[in-house]
Amino acid sequence: MIKITLPDGSVREYASGVTPMDVAKSISEGLARNVISASFNGTTVETVTELTTDGTLTLYTWNDQDGKKAFWHSTSHVMAQALEELYPGIKLTIGPAIEKGFYYDVDFGDHKITDADFKKIEDRVLEIAREKHDFKMRSVTKAEALALYKDNEFKTELIENLEDGTITFCDHSTFTDLCRGGHIPNTGIIKAVKILSVAGAYWRGNEKNKQLTRVYGISFPKQKDLTDYLELLEEAKRRDHRKLGKELELFHFSQRVGQGLPLWLPKGAALRDRLEQFLKKAQKKAGYEQVVTPHIGQKELYVTSGHYAKYGADSFQPIHTPAEGEEFLLKPMNCPHHCEIFNARPWSYKDLPKRYAEFGTVYRYEQSGELHGLTRVRGFTQDDAHIFCTPDQLDAEFKNVIDLVLYVFGSLGFENFTAQVSVRDLDNPEKYIGSVENWEKAEQAIINAAKDKGLNYVIESGEAAFYGPKLDFMVKDALGRSWQLGTIQVDYNLPERFDLTYKGADNELHRPVMIHRAPFGSMERFIAILLEHTGGNFPLWLMPEQAIILSLSEKYENYAKKVSDLLENHEIRALIDNRNETIGKKIREAETKKIPFMLIVGEEEEKNGTISVRKHGQEGKGNITITIDEFAALVNEEIGKSLKSFEV
Amino acid sequence: MIKITLPDGSVREYASGVTPMDVAKSISEGLARNVISASFNGTTVETVTELTTDGTLTLYTWNDQDGKKAFWHSTSHVMAQALEELYPGIKLTIGPAIEKGFYYDVDFGDHKITDADFKKIEDRVLEIAREKHDFKMRSVTKAEALALYKDNEFKTELIENLEDGTITFCDHSTFTDLCRGGHIPNTGIIKAVKILSVAGAYWRGNEKNKQLTRVYGISFPKQKDLTDYLELLEEAKRRDHRKLGKELELFHFSQRVGQGLPLWLPKGAALRDRLEQFLKKAQKKAGYEQVVTPHIGQKELYVTSGHYAKYGADSFQPIHTPAEGEEFLLKPMNCPHHCEIFNARPWSYKDLPKRYAEFGTVYRYEQSGELHGLTRVRGFTQDDAHIFCTPDQLDAEFKNVIDLVLYVFGSLGFENFTAQVSVRDLDNPEKYIGSVENWEKAEQAIINAAKDKGLNYVIESGEAAFYGPKLDFMVKDALGRSWQLGTIQVDYNLPERFDLTYKGADNELHRPVMIHRAPFGSMERFIAILLEHTGGNFPLWLMPEQAIILSLSEKYENYAKKVSDLLENHEIRALIDNRNETIGKKIREAETKKIPFMLIVGEEEEKNGTISVRKHGQEGKGNITITIDEFAALVNEEIGKSLKSFEV
Repeated sequence: MIKITLPDGSVREYASGVTPMDVAKSISEGLARNVISASFNGTTVETVTELTTDGTLTLYTWNDQDGKKAFWHSTSHVMAQALEELYPGIKLTIGPAIEKGFYYDVDFGDHKITDADFKKIEDRVLEIAREKHDFKMRSVTKAEALALYKDNEFKTELIENLEDGTITFCDHSTFTDLCRGGHIPNTGIIKAVKILSVAGAYWRGNEKNKQLTRVYGISFPKQKDLTDYLELLEEAKRRDHRKLGKELELFHFSQRVGQGLPLWLPKGAALRDRLEQFLKKAQKKAGYEQVVTPHIGQKELYVTSGHYAKYGADSFQPIHTPAEGEEFLLKPMNCPHHCEIFNARPWSYKDLPKRYAEFGTVYRYEQSGELHGLTRVRGFTQDDAHIFCTPDQLDAEFKNVIDLVLYVFGSLGFENFTAQVSVRDLDNPEKYIGSVENWEKAEQAIINAAKDKGLNYVIESGEAAFYGPKLDFMVKDALGRSWQLGTIQVDYNLPERFDLTYKGADNELHRPVMIHRAPFGSMERFIAILLEHTGGNFPLWLMPEQAIILSLSEKYENYAKKVSDLLENHEIRALIDNRNETIGKKIREAETKKIPFMLIVGEEEEKNGTISVRKHGQEGKGNITITIDEFAALVNEEIGKSLKSFEV
Repeated sequence: MIKITLPDGSVREYASGVTPMDVAKSISEGLARNVISASFNGTTVETVTELTTDGTLTLYTWNDQDGKKAFWHSTSHVMAQALEELYPGIKLTIGPAIEKGFYYDVDFGDHKITDADFKKIEDRVLEIAREKHDFKMRSVTKAEALALYKDNEFKTELIENLEDGTITFCDHSTFTDLCRGGHIPNTGIIKAVKILSVAGAYWRGNEKNKQLTRVYGISFPKQKDLTDYLELLEEAKRRDHRKLGKELELFHFSQRVGQGLPLWLPKGAALRDRLEQFLKKAQKKAGYEQVVTPHIGQKELYVTSGHYAKYGADSFQPIHTPAEGEEFLLKPMNCPHHCEIFNARPWSYKDLPKRYAEFGTVYRYEQSGELHGLTRVRGFTQDDAHIFCTPDQLDAEFKNVIDLVLYVFGSLGFENFTAQVSVRDLDNPEKYIGSVENWEKAEQAIINAAKDKGLNYVIESGEAAFYGPKLDFMVKDALGRSWQLGTIQVDYNLPERFDLTYKGADNELHRPVMIHRAPFGSMERFIAILLEHTGGNFPLWLMPEQAIILSLSEKYENYAKKVSDLLENHEIRALIDNRNETIGKKIREAETKKIPFMLIVGEEEEKNGTISVRKHGQEGKGNITITIDEFAALVNEEIGKSLKSFEV
């Protein structure tokens, strides 16, 4: 008999040789139906692997990422079989599962695979799947393995690097592949498959090697899952912030200015400004003070802060001066500058906390291959602030910062988020700077604040930075993707390095604690996420143009201008479209620009002092004819749905 | 007989040998009394020099800068005489007039001159002056000159470098000096003198040479002029923006961040922001669109713009990347970035003008010796904008820009200004790029606009840049000093270099014209000038804090808070001083901070819902007790005196 421990901690006894599937069946038939893979003592096993020692068993279903991985890895075998049948003579190399689906790198010889081949591959994969072949692992000798692949130099190279006695094959149907294991029970549960794309890929990722064809695919246990996935993919494409940024004329990249350095076009700059003013207003209420600091600093500043030692070699290199031998760096962070502002005069404990905020543009070198739209750039503006406080003030400050972050999320329609509290690894206290007493105070302050504010949080031991514990927010967007937004970080390091002090009630000098925080993170990345989250349909308060006045003809130009002026008095941002175009064309263009309200004005409206209001995205005739005051009330009511007032 | 032409063009005949003073007398006795120096055919002469050829004669009085120069140069002779008498054995070197006064560099040997000596020097200078000695020039041979200065190695060196036959001495009283001429008639008109300071100065400015003592002084034809001048000097010291910046906690320089790189403290950042919002609001009305661009650009961008060829070697040097061999430059100007924004899409003539505005921070290297507070820095934020228009739109655009500049000056209390229109040198047409037709259009547009707006302007031929004509404003501050503020510049060059185009009504591609303009110039320099112009007593609309609530004791803390909240509803910015200090101390501190209104609250005020209002700078009891609403009305009335609304 062996003892099997399950993830919930329960221990069950089984006869040696029991399989994970047997264990699943012993728990419930329902579970057994859903189990598709397993791991034993942390190592991937088959569901039919015979277990012969005590150990911990985890059973995976489609709902687990490990389950999906086995599912996709197994489908990759089936696709390889289909490819061999359809294109005899091809050479297979490797074919792993990836985050979403799988791929196989194949030497197709003279064949050239295109989109037109995908359907036939999918059909053959599904035929094989429906035959319900079991996946069966077996050990082989190195000699046997080399024999099977005597005509495949790629697999031969892989086998040469393996130790004899550790080599395994996986068989299903008529197909055999070199494989370490981790499969679903049989091909029958693969109900839907999609070949997504092909791309070039060098053997082993080395451009000196032969170029292979990488075939990407994804599979699902239900046809509906595939349909949903493809829809999500289409939607993600439609919402790609690079595409929307162009359509909405928000930003532009110029090769001459440089890659990763966005130019903000008027509408994008206005959007940024609106977000900045929104946060500034809340920050002012919360007692922050804006400061402005230069975008460069002497190298010595970053030597003091420690940034130069840590990042210097990988950053934009120092700027030399024509004379005097000075060296400056583009600032990668605003904190050293803010420390110098704190240091500009002496402080008493009565003056604290000081909260310095800056929309500070920083520059960090990224390799061009890493750049991506606005999410990975070389210059970006952080909604940065640094709070300098006494250790006793940490508790209240953390709560205030969380309030601010929640206000930001709430006003921008991010309703789905979790938090992670990163604390010390108590087994390695030497890794951290600052006193144990202060760490305990800070960690407790963060946990108290998270609890107090009703956050859905987890505590991760050992995840704190060497200089302090932190709280991170993970936000889910409308397409279910996770983004890290809004970090709050305690720092005991910079106050030491910059010798920051305040005079305590005891008349002695003390070190303040520093909190770094940025609810948006950066304007660039946040706007990218917001674009993809909302598809460009921003909350009404944020829209660059909240309304567009469409005149039925040029005759109503004066009335359109009058409406615009009245709206401005109500602080409603409106464009006028007085062009000599049909109203249909004007509406279509306004729809593309995602302007929330179209206000149609013609003879009737001018006579009655009204406007005909049509909402963005409402097909058909749903116009209502109302006065400007009524419209202003409507807009304010809509705005109030997302933008609450921030109270401290 | 010779013919003498006067500056007004009139020609008079005199006997050869006539002196400038004779000519003055022949015109009027009054003029003769005031003439203190002269130039003949562009060369400085004495008032007693005998004129023997035809020529143009200019007579100078104290009101001319040339007259002052002769006055101060002459005083320098008298001071040298006084110094030789008071400190026998000293060696004189050179002693010129400067912009304000004069100096003499002297080798004092063992003597050490301090402030304590000044009075005695001044007294001796005035004694000599009162003796009404004439200044008399005479020619000497090199040998004679060397003989007089046989014990003075400095004068000897000067004489060695002169050609025999061109050497002149000037005698007055018992004193003789090596001198090229340019004196007032006699010492008697020097009525007031002040020795200002002493400083070290190397012989001929070379630090390898002997260090001399430079004695600075100034003199006047009336005692009252000296008194006024010294008062102005004191006032300028009190208003020095570096001093006020510290007192008002506006900005700070950190050696660690780097010289010439201001850190804007909260109150300074708020002041900047208020100025920016003020201009942004007006610019929005005038049809500008804000953009945001990075602070670096590829070197190639500045090679294209021509800035690299012109300034590259003297600028902050290129920023290299750790990989990929890219080179970036800190941006010295925003225009190349804005050209790339214009280039982001095609334009039709119907879309123009495009007006891109940015508070763009640029970086320019200055030697550390050139840096001065906020007026000469290494990083500064321009209130930049570039207008891209058709040649036909220049006229209207120039008028609009002038309107904006005049609005800015008016709202900030600069009432005293002139304008200069810089046009081509018609004799050298090859110096300029762009067609003659366009230049004529642009120059005419500027002159029309200047006329139309009633500017007090002069036209300077040959002062235009090679790329276009311009209009500069010269502003006089409250101390009578002139500052260049608000340049408007036409540019035909960058549109060429960046290949900017728009499609005209003829369906062909055309080059737009570009206008550069910055009413403030830079936020840094403008704030410095504004501080010195106003002494920190900004127009009320701009004051970081418009009022401070001073509680008579801590008992009135709640009422003070209530007053503050009510003021916030009225958009009046107010601080609270609830400290446990005497009301006298609170008032004194508020006066130092130049807060316009002090609102005193105590038992009486709380009971009646009022405040006791005291205005900044009003000594004594002038308080009035009014309600918050009455106070708000008072504030708005005061604001309306400087800040008009901007209409386009």
